[in-house]
Amino acid sequence: MENERLNKQIDFILEADKEKNIIRQTHLSGNGRRENDAEHAWHMAIMVYLLKEYANEEFDVAKAMMMALIHDIVEIDAGDTYAYDSKGLETQKEREEQAAERIFGILPDDQGKELKSLFEEFEASKTPEARFVRAMDNFQPLLLNNSNDGSDWREHEIGKSQVMKRHINTKSGSNIIWECAKKIIDKHVRNGNIKDDADSL
Amino acid sequence: MENERLNKQIDFILEADKEKNIIRQTHLSGNGRRENDAEHAWHMAIMVYLLKEYANEEFDVAKAMMMALIHDIVEIDAGDTYAYDSKGLETQKEREEQAAERIFGILPDDQGKELKSLFEEFEASKTPEARFVRAMDNFQPLLLNNSNDGSDWREHEIGKSQVMKRHINTKSGSNIIWECAKKIIDKHVRNGNIKDDADSL
Repeated sequence: MENERLNKQIDFILEADKEKNIIRQTHLSGNGRRENDAEHAWHMAIMVYLLKEYANEEFDVAKAMMMALIHDIVEIDAGDTYAYDSKGLETQKEREEQAAERIFGILPDDQGKELKSLFEEFEASKTPEARFVRAMDNFQPLLLNNSNDGSDWREHEIGKSQVMKRHINTKSGSNIIWECAKKIIDKHVRNGNIKDDADSL
Repeated sequence: MENERLNKQIDFILEADKEKNIIRQTHLSGNGRRENDAEHAWHMAIMVYLLKEYANEEFDVAKAMMMALIHDIVEIDAGDTYAYDSKGLETQKEREEQAAERIFGILPDDQGKELKSLFEEFEASKTPEARFVRAMDNFQPLLLNNSNDGSDWREHEIGKSQVMKRHINTKSGSNIIWECAKKIIDKHVRNGNIKDDADSL
């Protein structure tokens, strides 16, 4: 009588709900509260659709949107690792692999494998979809931070070398978005919101 | 020198950020805080992808996901209208049309028209994409509310006739999801979380 497959999908949907409580370092525009992972992923998926014309390579839009929507779901177990937290970054991979096993394992086998593979593809950044989604993952907080006059960079005393290292992937997803990001970064270096500690890439 | 088109797209992306502050009546699972529109849309887009096998008709997945992601964006101006607020529902259409004009008008012309048309298509519920997205728009808060033992229905003293009226669209999007929703609704009528004020559809 019961639909076992649908029940597993519903269990996953309810598990995913917890991502709304994983808080990032980025603040909403208008110097608002800190953003959560679900909001960040929603914003990224909209950007994937709206900015797809700037991708360096053609890509599958539905696949890239789903990749954006679920790319942080492992943080339900592993927590958010700030892009500039070097200690956290050391253990991030292992923590996130265990989380992927458990969380995607809630789904029916075929879908669990599909989403785990989509997450791993994002992490590896070796396909057109992953490269463009990665660019959006970098560009989205940059836009928010820029709208708040660089307050997140100031608060964490971030240097230009760190920002540039993070944005290596932006360029491989989209040269045009990278050019735009670079202008924004340069402005904040000039204004002192990002510490000028290095040359560019 | 400047990329006028990209600037308009960025303006829209920053405007959309405000949707994270539009609060709904539904509470997060685990009797959490009230959900916002961006989180709701994120959850729905994931559900569109994961539950697409249950749709009554074939549909374009990327289009339906984008429809889910932006279907509430007009509430930045028009506010959230609770599904069971009969007074608010009277003026909802006019408020939302004005908002659509302004907000989608921020985008470059072609994309502004595309997203406005996607929003209107959702509202009209006359295409396979719109019918399935509408089903997810109903099923998502139902799942959260069910996980919280029906507390949102109890708080607002909702009757079965109201729930059934709302879910007319669930059935036209997916018979299987509707069967599942109906079981959940019936359980909460039996438990007294939904007032038994009418027969079914």
